[in-house]
Parts: sequence; C-alpha cells; structure tokens
Amino acid sequence: MSATAEITAAIIVIGDEILSGRTQDVNIHFLAKELTKLGIPLREVRVVPDVADEIVAAVNTLRQKFTYVFTTGGIGPTHDDITSASVAKAFGLEIHRHPDAVKLLEGHYAPGELTEARLKMTEVPVGATLIQNPISKAPGFKIGNVHVLAGVPKIAEAMFDAIRPTLQGGPEIHARTVSCSLGEGAIAARLSAIQDRFPDTSIGSYPYFTGSGGGSGTALVTRGTDLARVQAAAAEIHAMILDLGGQAENI
Amino acid sequence: MSATAEITAAIIVIGDEILSGRTQDVNIHFLAKELTKLGIPLREVRVVPDVADEIVAAVNTLRQKFTYVFTTGGIGPTHDDITSASVAKAFGLEIHRHPDAVKLLEGHYAPGELTEARLKMTEVPVGATLIQNPISKAPGFKIGNVHVLAGVPKIAEAMFDAIRPTLQGGPEIHARTVSCSLGEGAIAARLSAIQDRFPDTSIGSYPYFTGSGGGSGTALVTRGTDLARVQAAAAEIHAMILDLGGQAENI
Repeated sequence: MSATAEITAAIIVIGDEILSGRTQDVNIHFLAKELTKLGIPLREVRVVPDVADEIVAAVNTLRQKFTYVFTTGGIGPTHDDITSASVAKAFGLEIHRHPDAVKLLEGHYAPGELTEARLKMTEVPVGATLIQNPISKAPGFKIGNVHVLAGVPKIAEAMFDAIRPTLQGGPEIHARTVSCSLGEGAIAARLSAIQDRFPDTSIGSYPYFTGSGGGSGTALVTRGTDLARVQAAAAEIHAMILDLGGQAENI
Repeated sequence: MSATAEITAAIIVIGDEILSGRTQDVNIHFLAKELTKLGIPLREVRVVPDVADEIVAAVNTLRQKFTYVFTTGGIGPTHDDITSASVAKAFGLEIHRHPDAVKLLEGHYAPGELTEARLKMTEVPVGATLIQNPISKAPGFKIGNVHVLAGVPKIAEAMFDAIRPTLQGGPEIHARTVSCSLGEGAIAARLSAIQDRFPDTSIGSYPYFTGSGGGSGTALVTRGTDLARVQAAAAEIHAMILDLGGQAENI
C-alpha cells in the first residue's frame, strides 16, 4: 500500500495464449471496470508468460506496490498451469491440497473421475483461502493481498463476483463524458486550461474514427471522486466546445 | 537482447483509458499476432497510467530486457499526451520539433490551423526517426529499440505496417491446434508426457465453454520453430484423444 494509503490494484495476466496472439484478453477490461466501480483504481497490468520466474517476479513487485493484486490464468490441471506453484514460491510458501477444495471436487466428479491431474487443481499455498467457482468448481484462492482467478472469462467473472464483497473500496470514482465533433488539436489549449482549473479531476482526451464513411471526433472524459467537480469540469468542456463552433453531446 | 541473442519483444500500453475500464484494448492482440508471424516472440506487456515516472520506469526496464519495445498511446496534442516527453526522459534526451514532422503537418492542415497544440505532435526525442502515419499524418517515432505508436487502433496498425519491413525476425513460429471434446482433467497426464517428449515445442491447453446451451472442450496448441515437430506433437495429441474415447478436430 502506498504511503498515502490510497487503495489501488494491479492485474497480472498469466498466459502464453495472450502473448502469442491466440487469444484476445477480455479479463483486464472486465476487472478494470469492476474495480473502478468499487473505487479501487487499477494502476498497472502486466502480461507475463507461463514461466515461473516471470510470475514470481511480477507477483513480488506488484504485491508490495499495490493494495490488491489479481492474477488470471494458469490454475487448471495441465502441465502449463503453474500459477499456484509460482505464487507459493513468490510468498516463500509450500503448496498443499486444500481439504475443502478436495471435498468440492469429490462432490463434482463421479467416482474414479477425480484423477491426479484434477487433484492438482486443489493445490494452493499453505494458508491460502479459497475463492468459490460456481461454474466448474475448481476454486481460485487468496494469499496475502493476491487473488488468484481463472483465465476463462466466465469463471474469472464468477470468481470476482465471489470476492467483490470482501474488497475494501475507496471513494467512488465518477466519470462524465462529453463527445464532440472537433479534433484534439482544436481543443487542446483550452482543454489544458480547464484541467489546470480542476486539478482534483483527471481529464482524458480520446480521439475516435468511426470508419471511412463515418465521422471522427473526440471523447473528453472527466474523472474524480467529487461528483460536483466532475460535473462542473464536464460542463466547462461542453461550453468550450460550443464556443469553438463544435457540436457536443454528453454521453 | 538476451544472452542467447534470441529476438524478443515487449509492449507498453500507455493509457488511463485502459486502466479505468473505459476502453477495451485491442492493440496488444494485434501486435501479438503480427510479431508472432514475424518470428518475434512477445514476452511481456505492461499497461501503465499517463504518469511520466511510470512510463520512464517501464521503458527503461523493458528496453534493456528485450530486442524490441513497442509503445501505444499518448502521442496526441492534448495535456494527457506525455509519451514523447517520457520516452525522451527515459533515454536522457531532449525533445525537439522534428523538421520532417513539421513539414508533414504543414502540408496536412490549412493555413492557420497548425496550432501550437498540433505542433506538439512533431516533438520527438533528439535523434529519433519518424514512423509514418498515413491516416492522420502526425507521426510516431523510433528511438533506440523503442517504437512509439499511436493508441487509436487503426493508426497503430498503419504505423506497424510502416515499420514491419525494418524488423528483424527470428525463425517463423508455427502453431497447430487440436480441438477436442474432453476436459483438461481427462487428458492432463498423457498431455504432459507428450510435452516431455517434445521439449522443443510448447504445448498449451485452453479450456473453452461456448455457453449454457453449447458445448465445452479443450483446445490444445503446439508451437515451435520446427514445423515437422509441431505437426508431430499435434498428431500425437490427436491420437491420444481418440484413444481416450474423445472427439478431436484439427483446426
């Protein structure tokens, strides 16, 4: 946790399939939205390969820097699933078969189906608590401030739903968006002046192109914990765009 | 570059809009696919906020660790676009208005439209070479092994197209996928044995769920630079699945 005790988060995506381009990650976007709603700003994401040393290094760097760390991926039964062992190594802990996890899988699989491979999914660092998985039963876990989630998006989402009530959020982060017909270059100088007058809000400027036959413009987003200030900054931006001869829409 | 001189890459996504959950990143997936095609394995991705110190730290860590670094985002004309200045700082360089970039924008904008804000988009570290932007003209740049691309996906893609011929790839990385009806737990032990027999290929196992009414199964991906070995590993996996009573399809 930072010196100011601001509540923050980081994500570690563990997966060769993201780095190889096989899979488009969607977990970062889901977690980013959910954490923002909880007033927990996401400050960093790392995508690392299925390599123990890389996972250990990322876990140890980020768990010391941020309030919460969430990992996705690598908790299945196959040889390339090394997240549990790597997170245990990062904490200097042994892994064991968590008795509650074994019970969960015993209840889920038919007799004789609970193979050694599947039992691997019950292995968590000693002292870890389980995160429920209502979809395919094999649980995630929490150790220290690190939450280990599945990589399959539906399961990652269900696991996050399970831990949401346990997360301590900061003040809600409000956002307002003004979409306008002007390009960034036309508004940059006056937008910067508005940002200077609203140092307690963060103003982002995002150009967009909707295709060769479509339009282009800029989305201007004000963010902050003080809703009145966020709204006031958005109102100033709206007025500025009209004053510059553009069209503006609050979205 | 690593001690073995393997050619590798990393990506730094610079953008509060990704961390806040406003925007689903698609540049990582695009670059991952393209780099893989070029035989340049992507080894790490970091998403960092629009904060100079964070950008400087990520650039300096990753440019020493990997052959190529690609950044996306933060090169527009507004106050939150701090990538050029931050990359210059990482290299201990000053920024200047690149004369070729100024000419490009002078040709693009009507007289009087080339504002100070737009001229900010001509600022690059001293010694940087420009990366062409056929869409909106304002260029990216390359300094050392760091390639600075736009955040807007169409522009990032066009800029990557421009630099593709300049990148030195390693041997092509081949991949074959066997999709099967079995769950990971049923195949894990024998899959691990195949991985042991093919240490020169990387075998990944990715469970999928296609919805409550749909099916589920596992995609098994073999990867490597020796096509014959990649195909042989895939053939063994295919045979193993049939032997286990499952259905398999090469996709």
